[in-house]
Amino acid sequence: MAIAASSLSAQKLFTLEDLNFGGTNYEQMRPKRLNTTWYGNELTTYDSEHFYGFDKLTGEKSIIDDPRTPRTELEEGTQKLEWNDQSRTWAFLKDNNLYIKCGDREAVQISTDGSREIVYGQSVHRNEFGIHKGTFFSPDGKKLAFYRMDQSMVTDYPQVNTFERSATYEPDKYPMAGMTSHKVTVGIVEVETGKTLYLDLGDTTDRYFTNIAWSPDGTTLYLIEVNRDQTDSSLDAYCAASGKKIATLFTEHNDRYTEPLHPITFLPWDSKRFIYWSQKDGYQHLYLMNTEGRIERQLTSGNWVVRDLAGFCEATHSLIYVSNEIHPLQMNIFSLNIDNGKKTRLDNGKGVHYASLSADGKWVVDTWSEPDVPRVTALTNTLTAKTIELLRSDDPWAGYQQPTFEMGSIKADDGVTDLYWRMVKPADFDPSKKYPTVVYVYGGPHAHNVEASWHWYSRSWETYMAQKGYIVFILDNRGSENRGLEFEQITFRHLGQVEMRDQMSGVEYLKSLPYVDADRIGVHGWSYGGFMTISLMTNYPDTFKVGVAGGPVIDWKWYEVMYGERYMDTPQSNPEGYEQTSLLNKAKDLKGHLLIVTGMNDNTVVPQHCLQFLNRCAEEGTYPLFFAYPGEQHNMMKHKSVHLHEMITRYFEDYLK
Amino acid sequence: MAIAASSLSAQKLFTLEDLNFGGTNYEQMRPKRLNTTWYGNELTTYDSEHFYGFDKLTGEKSIIDDPRTPRTELEEGTQKLEWNDQSRTWAFLKDNNLYIKCGDREAVQISTDGSREIVYGQSVHRNEFGIHKGTFFSPDGKKLAFYRMDQSMVTDYPQVNTFERSATYEPDKYPMAGMTSHKVTVGIVEVETGKTLYLDLGDTTDRYFTNIAWSPDGTTLYLIEVNRDQTDSSLDAYCAASGKKIATLFTEHNDRYTEPLHPITFLPWDSKRFIYWSQKDGYQHLYLMNTEGRIERQLTSGNWVVRDLAGFCEATHSLIYVSNEIHPLQMNIFSLNIDNGKKTRLDNGKGVHYASLSADGKWVVDTWSEPDVPRVTALTNTLTAKTIELLRSDDPWAGYQQPTFEMGSIKADDGVTDLYWRMVKPADFDPSKKYPTVVYVYGGPHAHNVEASWHWYSRSWETYMAQKGYIVFILDNRGSENRGLEFEQITFRHLGQVEMRDQMSGVEYLKSLPYVDADRIGVHGWSYGGFMTISLMTNYPDTFKVGVAGGPVIDWKWYEVMYGERYMDTPQSNPEGYEQTSLLNKAKDLKGHLLIVTGMNDNTVVPQHCLQFLNRCAEEGTYPLFFAYPGEQHNMMKHKSVHLHEMITRYFEDYLK
Repeated sequence: MAIAASSLSAQKLFTLEDLNFGGTNYEQMRPKRLNTTWYGNELTTYDSEHFYGFDKLTGEKSIIDDPRTPRTELEEGTQKLEWNDQSRTWAFLKDNNLYIKCGDREAVQISTDGSREIVYGQSVHRNEFGIHKGTFFSPDGKKLAFYRMDQSMVTDYPQVNTFERSATYEPDKYPMAGMTSHKVTVGIVEVETGKTLYLDLGDTTDRYFTNIAWSPDGTTLYLIEVNRDQTDSSLDAYCAASGKKIATLFTEHNDRYTEPLHPITFLPWDSKRFIYWSQKDGYQHLYLMNTEGRIERQLTSGNWVVRDLAGFCEATHSLIYVSNEIHPLQMNIFSLNIDNGKKTRLDNGKGVHYASLSADGKWVVDTWSEPDVPRVTALTNTLTAKTIELLRSDDPWAGYQQPTFEMGSIKADDGVTDLYWRMVKPADFDPSKKYPTVVYVYGGPHAHNVEASWHWYSRSWETYMAQKGYIVFILDNRGSENRGLEFEQITFRHLGQVEMRDQMSGVEYLKSLPYVDADRIGVHGWSYGGFMTISLMTNYPDTFKVGVAGGPVIDWKWYEVMYGERYMDTPQSNPEGYEQTSLLNKAKDLKGHLLIVTGMNDNTVVPQHCLQFLNRCAEEGTYPLFFAYPGEQHNMMKHKSVHLHEMITRYFEDYLK
Repeated sequence: MAIAASSLSAQKLFTLEDLNFGGTNYEQMRPKRLNTTWYGNELTTYDSEHFYGFDKLTGEKSIIDDPRTPRTELEEGTQKLEWNDQSRTWAFLKDNNLYIKCGDREAVQISTDGSREIVYGQSVHRNEFGIHKGTFFSPDGKKLAFYRMDQSMVTDYPQVNTFERSATYEPDKYPMAGMTSHKVTVGIVEVETGKTLYLDLGDTTDRYFTNIAWSPDGTTLYLIEVNRDQTDSSLDAYCAASGKKIATLFTEHNDRYTEPLHPITFLPWDSKRFIYWSQKDGYQHLYLMNTEGRIERQLTSGNWVVRDLAGFCEATHSLIYVSNEIHPLQMNIFSLNIDNGKKTRLDNGKGVHYASLSADGKWVVDTWSEPDVPRVTALTNTLTAKTIELLRSDDPWAGYQQPTFEMGSIKADDGVTDLYWRMVKPADFDPSKKYPTVVYVYGGPHAHNVEASWHWYSRSWETYMAQKGYIVFILDNRGSENRGLEFEQITFRHLGQVEMRDQMSGVEYLKSLPYVDADRIGVHGWSYGGFMTISLMTNYPDTFKVGVAGGPVIDWKWYEVMYGERYMDTPQSNPEGYEQTSLLNKAKDLKGHLLIVTGMNDNTVVPQHCLQFLNRCAEEGTYPLFFAYPGEQHNMMKHKSVHLHEMITRYFEDYLK
């Protein structure tokens, strides 16, 4: 039923200052959030004046002393890496070299050859394989493992800083698919003495050392090694005292690729057993493994995936995890008794939940939303599943003219696979009218766009477009995350191709709807979604009249080694796949209006992609337009994002309406 | 009177492949050209099989032997600089060092420290001051003067080559206004011995050495030195044997700037007298000066300018020159007897003529066009002014639907100054209709857009736009060339400001025409014209609805020292002028649709201009679009130019129609 225009007109209209991050009114328009932190078993929050502790039975909060352990001061000009409470030690960088400083003692310099080319203590392998830092204290804080990356052999990508008086050259090490990559090793420092050794790894060429973990007693360092082809992974144990390899505990092989993303996690009550993550049965699941490398039990199983291991409750020998076992679009929190296998759901069984566990695992902060629930923060007893709400946000959009958000699914062209979509419709939607429709797409691995969170996970720009009179449609194609290995890996060696078929299934569905104007279909996406946008514009030039592609990959040979070769192998070993997917070959087929946008200092999808596509279009006689944000990298930050989305909107307004 | 639609429809339509240089049919659509070369007093031409000589009395041609002097062979990997017929000597570069090779002798290496930073034998001072080469043989070929430029102290502009496997850094020395500039010296080699000396110039910081010329006997080298502020120029004589300065012959001062553009030229019959060019009376004229530095006579004078000194006829003691004394938009050829001052016009007194003189000066090849004459090549006796036509081109556009080309003038806002304009109208022009109108603009010094040549000098794109239904209007504002010093220098220290006033006078005229749609006025220009386009779009945002700016200067602080400081002084000495003209400050005022285009490797107007303007627009919430041609420099070459003009056309079609 259409809402009467008179009641709509009483409602406020959104601007991008309201909707878009970086917008001047954005923070006021978000669901209210309760920022909580566990200190041990104490749940705390703070405001500008005080810290507060929560009574876990009533949810009431009261002023407490600052719960934070005082930290050692560091001199200026240092870059903090990690603090360890046990040994009261900082790991930090100064002039690219690694230092530790234990309590009030003098700082100890661990490395001397740190530089732009020899990198210490930082994330390596371009943050792939779940790596997001480069220092790893042992549980007792007495040892520090750290990465050392030699990238002197890696080609520099020439970035240019145009903000100086005269533009300056800022080289950035960027290993491209099929080209020489960096070499990584792992060192271990004894905090007490500063004594440092390196794991005895031999020649580290083309080897990835991922998912570092310590044994509970700090004598053994575990990591998962992956070969450059990424077909094999190996859980290895190294002696922290000698650096020698003790054993290979477990190996996995996959003809396409293995991709370890989670370090092993020891049971708090058993130093011989740990949790090992694996997709070897086709879905991301948890396994109970012992230090002999034997899998004692598969703890979770089914056609769904574990999304998070929140931790353990030692008292009940339970682990707390988050999965999508209730529905592919949901995340729900479960307690699993490791001794008897008994599983208990700890949340309301709806929506998308995030879990934060107390030290003893008896309590979990559950922060969630549902399609019509903006955000709730609750505290749940993991033994009883009893919950008290700490904060329930009102609808921050109340009083505004809100679009409608719908979710549904279609079958992929295999007739079997469910593909979930979201649709955003104008507030005054009239099914007898025909609407211009924009397909928003990402489409790449390790991401999804549709989930059972607030507004079905809608991005703010979709609301803006709906308000301008567009339908916006988003479909998670095969290749996206949380649906299992086959769903993801079907794109192997020909990225974009199956994804396009699924997006076109979505378009067929759109065309079946009487209120979608099939002559006014556009497409927009960023990064992998930029690649998808140009792929769709050029492979289906009669379908898509207008496209906006941001930070697009144009040819995978210009993307980095770790991610690029996982999905595409190398240009040398998969020339036909690179040829098939290269948008340079498709530049000639562009018909519609295409706007390409990039951060001019993008160090993820380097400007070479965009620029060489423009060149090819100029050679082939096709006519995209372009915009570049100098100084910006792969994603537009702060208010630049508002500008970006206004520009994208204007482009559709100019050409699709 | 409107042409009947039926007759129009029988005519062919142009494509940019016909009209635009680089187009597949472009060469067929140009007026026929006769390529002639004088060898001494023999007028020759050639085709793929033969050389031909012309009978100068009948114009008939017959096969002749190859008239060229055989030249010494050079080994591969060398860059030829200049050949001298007298001494049969090559000046050439190898690995950045200067060599000479005389006849069959071994090549002699003149310099050893040549590099990207120490440049030998090439044009210096960024081709300003009329400099276009770096080697200068003495008349007898026995000595070679050459430039040496040390640019090690000049900041590198970081150009990026995105055509390599992984993009590469290609630094380019680019001295920006107000920043440290290069240092130039002049060397002299004795060809016989290879002995080299440098002029005794002292500290060459911030000094320009321009317009090198030899005395007829090769003992004295003349040059015109200009200070960095360009307020003073000095004609100096140096001893070629010692390198010592002999004398300063003549100096000029101008509070704004002096700009010597022509070396002195000795009379063939008098080694003590030469022609000196000067704008000191406000117009570019010729003076008879002697080697004492005394001006004996002003040879030409009036409110017009000499455009070319074609040479001399020794037999009659005449010089042959080209000027616009008949009409500011014309170039006509005159003979001037130096002994008695008698002047004779050698051409038809119409149109735009180019002169190429025989060695004895008795004959001139006159190549000209008029607004309705595509091109004629004729041979004229300079003694009798008798002419025979060698080739008269048919209209290469016959059979096509041609627009109409008109010329006229308006007064500038001083009420006095004539500003000439050209207008191109659709073939089916109907004065009762209202047409979208595009102002094409350049506007900078050393250029003009309107002259009495074919189609009033119309650019091909104007015809394309007229065919699409636009009126195109071009006006040469103050600051442009050939109209005298005051007309040019009025823009000093505030480039773009007077130019905009004149362009707006043109727009007022357009608005007075009933067939110009004042709500659909656009603007397009390249380089200085790009600067003008954005200046106009942002200073008059309600006038110009659509603009396309190519290779635009955004802020003169990013332009090079020689040109930039001549017209703007330095950012340090003219901060208010730089502020006033900087388009960064105007980014916020953009309202209409603006497309900015650049060669991504532009080393004249470096990409910093465009990119920082885009950044400022992103900060200010305005929305230009962009296109970049990777690998291209300041002007799009070959077929890229066709692509460019099609893109520009589409942008106007999308937004102005």
